[in-house]
Formats: sequence, C-alpha cells, structure tokens
Amino acid sequence: MKKILITNDDGIFAPGIRHLWNALKGHFEVTIAAPATEQSGVGVSITAHHPLRLSEYAWSEQARAWCVTGTPADCVKLALNEFYTDPPDLIVSGINCGANSGRNVLYSGTIGGVIEGLMHEIPGVAFSCYDMNNPDFHQAEKHVLNIVNHTLEHSLPSGTLLNVNFPSRTCGEIKGYKLARQGKQFWAEDPDKRFHPSRGHPYYWIGVKLAQFDEHEDSDVSWLQKGFLTAVPIHVGELTDFNHLTARKVNFEKLYP
Amino acid sequence: MKKILITNDDGIFAPGIRHLWNALKGHFEVTIAAPATEQSGVGVSITAHHPLRLSEYAWSEQARAWCVTGTPADCVKLALNEFYTDPPDLIVSGINCGANSGRNVLYSGTIGGVIEGLMHEIPGVAFSCYDMNNPDFHQAEKHVLNIVNHTLEHSLPSGTLLNVNFPSRTCGEIKGYKLARQGKQFWAEDPDKRFHPSRGHPYYWIGVKLAQFDEHEDSDVSWLQKGFLTAVPIHVGELTDFNHLTARKVNFEKLYP
Repeated sequence: MKKILITNDDGIFAPGIRHLWNALKGHFEVTIAAPATEQSGVGVSITAHHPLRLSEYAWSEQARAWCVTGTPADCVKLALNEFYTDPPDLIVSGINCGANSGRNVLYSGTIGGVIEGLMHEIPGVAFSCYDMNNPDFHQAEKHVLNIVNHTLEHSLPSGTLLNVNFPSRTCGEIKGYKLARQGKQFWAEDPDKRFHPSRGHPYYWIGVKLAQFDEHEDSDVSWLQKGFLTAVPIHVGELTDFNHLTARKVNFEKLYP
Repeated sequence: MKKILITNDDGIFAPGIRHLWNALKGHFEVTIAAPATEQSGVGVSITAHHPLRLSEYAWSEQARAWCVTGTPADCVKLALNEFYTDPPDLIVSGINCGANSGRNVLYSGTIGGVIEGLMHEIPGVAFSCYDMNNPDFHQAEKHVLNIVNHTLEHSLPSGTLLNVNFPSRTCGEIKGYKLARQGKQFWAEDPDKRFHPSRGHPYYWIGVKLAQFDEHEDSDVSWLQKGFLTAVPIHVGELTDFNHLTARKVNFEKLYP
C-alpha cells in the first residue's frame, strides 16, 4: 500500500483536512501532520527563530496524526524526519478553504507544505476550494482519489507540483477537469484600515482584495469562473532566469571595481 | 531623484538594514518599511488572519521609516499603499545576516519582500551575507550602490529579481562578481531535538542544517565558496510547467468521471 503524508494550512482541526482523509482512507497508508493553529498565507515559511512542539492528535484508529506549532513546511520537515525511514510516495495538502489560484501559489501555506516535499524529491498535490464563502468539501472529496491515483500513476517532473482548485459551489456540478496554466490574480494589498475602539490607533487587515487581471483563456482563474476543476503544474525546482543570465553575464561581471 | 523602498527580514533594528541605508542615502529618495520583529524564514508570507500595526520609527532626518508587526511582504504591501502615489523605482531588501543562496530563496523573508514588489511590477534586489557567523556588512556596504545603479540602468525582466549574496568574511577580499545560476543547497529538516528542562517534553529546532548537493560550477553556492559575490536572476513571475502541461493535458482532462 502506498504511503501518503497529509498536511494543510487551515490547521488540523479544520473541516477540509478531514474531507481529504475521507477521500484517501483505506486506499493508502496515511500519516497526518498539520499545524496546531491556522497558518493561512504563510507560503513555504519555516520557523527559524523559535522551537517547535509536536503533539499526537486523536484522529482515527486508522491513522496516526500529529499537530505542530508551526507552518505546513515545518510539519513536512518534522514528519519526514520523525515518522519515515523510507519517504512517503506523495504529499497531499488541503482541502484549503479559499482560492490558491493564479499568483497566490507563493502565499499559500497549503502549497507551501507541498513545496517542502519537492525539496526532498517527494511529489505532491495541493487541493483548494476557490470560493472561501462557498467551499463544497463534500463535492470536492469525490474527486480527490481520482486525481491522487492519476498523479501516482503518471509521475510529475522533479520540482513540479500539481495545484488543484475546485470551483465555487455557486457554479453547481463540476463541469469538467482542466489542466491549466497559472493565472495572474493575487491578494493585492489595498488594506482595510480601521481604528482601535478606545485608543484610536490605526490597524490594517491585508489580503482582503483579490486583484484581477486580463486572464488567458486557458488559465486556472478563467476555467474556475466557468465551473471547471483546475490543476496547474507549478514548477519551483529551478528558478534561474537563464535568458537574463546569458544576456547580462559579461556586463554584470565587469562591474567589479 | 529615483525612489527606493528598503525592507528586510531581520527586523528594523538589525545591523544589516542600517548598512543598506548607509550605502544608498544621498543617492536616492529612500523610504524604509521593515518588520518590528525578526522574520527570518518567512518567505513571501502575508499576515492573513490577524491585523497589522504600522508605527513610525525614529531612523534619520534624511528618511522616514516605519515598522510593521508582520512580514517583509506585509511591509511592502502596506508601504506601497500608504506612502506612495507613484510606486518606487526599486525595492531593496537586506542586508540579511545569513545565506539566501541555492534553494533557500523561497524560505527567505529578505527575498519575500522583493517578490511582493514583483507582483506589483516593481523590480527588486535582495542582499544577503552568506555566512551568518561572519557577516562583513562593512565590506558588503561598499558594493551595494554599484549593483543598485546597474539594476536601475539595465532593467530586469518582469517577474525576475536579483538575489545577491556576499561571501564569508573568512574568504578575505571579494574576488569578483558572478552573475550565476541558482544552486541546490537548502535548509534541510534534520531537526535538533531537545527536552524541556523540567517537564521533559521534546521540542525541535529546525533549519539548522544546510543540506549540500553536487553543485554546478556556475552556481551561486560554488562561487560563494570561492570568495565571489554572486547575483542570481530568480524568476517567479510565471511558474507554469508548460512541458508537463502540453504533454499531459488531454490525458488529465479525460479523467473527469
């Protein structure tokens, strides 16, 4: 039986991770390592300047689960070191409550846990519900096993993860699957500025506005708005801009005083 | 006079950001927005689930500075919204105390602040000292203006930042500049497990081991070890793995039940 490590960024108590487990239990040897508190927006953060606690969590008789006082990437780091002699076959993260489409991939803790796996050559899939106000985890759950099995049968390239988003419940039944390109939308700043009720000092909520752009018709953002499930192969293994490197190498190196 | 926004991840009180300021003051119209507390390892995290405070910081008569109770990306988001009608010409981050070479770029809060700028089409440069035990900020400071001027004169492609690391002080004088490719090293898990002094429960320090790999001779890691300053053009603007997308599109879309 293949081994899967489950993580998320909404926290081990969140509904979405329970639905991920429901979809995978009985089919795989599952271990769960998820944050003790919500970690939305932490990307591939690691906790470098204070120590971490790791506590067993009463999940189910069929799987062992741990919660970690850190980020999804911390969870993956600790789990790989503490619970595996041979690494898991796949890391699956989510199901996130909210969009991880477009350029939000680098903000996403859900995806951050999967990126940490890629650093160790373990493939991964991130699952998210596009509409945080209308997540249909029950519908999403029905598609997870299908996509996980496909990913295990047709391996992803080294350094590439699969970023899956489910459309809003308001779109009705899922219209189909699209292997899509990354869209452009992201959580722009436009902070909501408020004032303390008695002291009067300002404070700010950020990440409240999803900035929209003209999107390619084959982008995840475009297909999600039409009610399709999207999967974007996201590559973070090699980030060098080789065109720029080649064009500017001599010029830059001559700068040395 | 061109406008530069300075940020970092070690916190507004850290020595490295003061050296960055020393290098740039008088040459640019500088604004500073940096974290109120250390944010090492937070990558491009944003603070999504609690509000942020923004406080003016007594920096210098020549520049206004603010500290933010959040991450470098939060600092950039708030600064762009609160302090600029026209965006700055460049975002400069650091000088970080510790390596941001190889695959650590996605863990780096120093680089995270610059990535946030790229989302808004503002170019950026991250500066870091490779050896956290031997940062030579004084030597590093001498090279900052040179590289910043070059970056402003020869624009970076959209979605690409420049990731600069200074070699260890133990290498002596900087041997030269190298526009290099991204290396492979990263902060592997291998946690340091310790026990509470009276309660006995375990806790873990992560990010304590820099995993090493066979490195390309033109990688930042290789050149840094030989005493060169390195600059890697890192592209995060488009992360779609187009080869995989093309090869697997039909196959994946047929999975729809």
